[in-house]
Amino acid sequence: MEIATEYIHIKTKGNTDIIDITERVQGILSPSGFREGSATVFAVGSTASITTVEYEPGLVKTDLPKVFNMLAPYGQHYEHHNTWGDDNGSSHVKASLIGCSLVVPFVDGRLMLGTWQQIIYIDFDTRARSRKVVVQLSGLR
Amino acid sequence: MEIATEYIHIKTKGNTDIIDITERVQGILSPSGFREGSATVFAVGSTASITTVEYEPGLVKTDLPKVFNMLAPYGQHYEHHNTWGDDNGSSHVKASLIGCSLVVPFVDGRLMLGTWQQIIYIDFDTRARSRKVVVQLSGLR
Amino acid sequence: MEIATEYIHIKTKGNTDIIDITERVQGILSPSGFREGSATVFAVGSTASITTVEYEPGLVKTDLPKVFNMLAPYGQHYEHHNTWGDDNGSSHVKASLIGCSLVVPFVDGRLMLGTWQQIIYIDFDTRARSRKVVVQLSGLR
Repeated sequence: MEIATEYIHIKTKGNTDIIDITERVQGILSPSGFREGSATVFAVGSTASITTVEYEPGLVKTDLPKVFNMLAPYGQHYEHHNTWGDDNGSSHVKASLIGCSLVVPFVDGRLMLGTWQQIIYIDFDTRARSRKVVVQLSGLR
Repeated sequence: MEIATEYIHIKTKGNTDIIDITERVQGILSPSGFREGSATVFAVGSTASITTVEYEPGLVKTDLPKVFNMLAPYGQHYEHHNTWGDDNGSSHVKASLIGCSLVVPFVDGRLMLGTWQQIIYIDFDTRARSRKVVVQLSGLR
Repeated sequence: MEIATEYIHIKTKGNTDIIDITERVQGILSPSGFREGSATVFAVGSTASITTVEYEPGLVKTDLPKVFNMLAPYGQHYEHHNTWGDDNGSSHVKASLIGCSLVVPFVDGRLMLGTWQQIIYIDFDTRARSRKVVVQLSGLR
């Protein structure tokens, strides 16, 4: 078995910007020569998450953000704001709930996602940011 | 280190059907000869999740479904329904929140779960379905 | 590639006690000689979780517990209580939602966390407990 660690760099708009990174992960996997193994996709930072969804506008622009906002509304008071003078307490809470790490198996060099299952990066922070995602491949070439 | 990719096929009732797949995962691990490593359990599809719970009827039939329904109630309007004419917007939202991937370490060929900690597959879709779960073992035989 | 399985033992206060275990995970990684790979951090048991957060008192003592309590309040009725006479139905529900497993890549022997991103163990149980966390390293030395 072998290992390779690569990175995706993303510019986001923040504010629950949901970005489909499936092709970028597959685009690291395909030329790597790895055939069977898993890709660990990891969001560096404490106000962003990785998960999967059917990437279509209804879910991505409306339905998911609505539930995230219900869980931890922006504009309310968070004690985190007292610590740093930040306004992103809700961003941190949402990121902790959804999680920053995803492991996707692959076979024959293809991620084993469903047809309607895309890997998404969610930037919960309250401003546009430049972000780093780790994509670590582990398996057999 | 070596790797092996296997599959579990499940027939579900949908509608937050929660199925204990612990023995099926262990049933792949035991005859494989792997001693130390990890099992990645991955739900293929965008309306299902993998997590752990104490598998007893109170939690599985009532307490967990109640909270899932609070998070994203079935029967409300989701923009996702406009995209496809589906009725499973709440299923997608719940699956994204809970996640589709779990990594469980094993030692001496045994999954390192607690006594009351079972691996569950949750089908959030709104109809009965035939489902595929990837179980990928990575480690030493 | 090689693998090593280690353990962290923690005494918690229960009741959503949130403990920063970043230095303990790094403290296993550093002397191990592993350079590139991933650490799987796994909470054994069904009333505890692993995730990441910026570990500062506002989030850890107030903001996160508040949202967890909104999701599954302590002191309400759960069917789980009928099964065992327990009082920790809300603990189980929260643990299933947040999840028990986290995979963190490392390079040059350093966990690839953000500066403000710490690994936390959350004990959702309703009493003080002694807990075991699995830290499994996989990669190249």
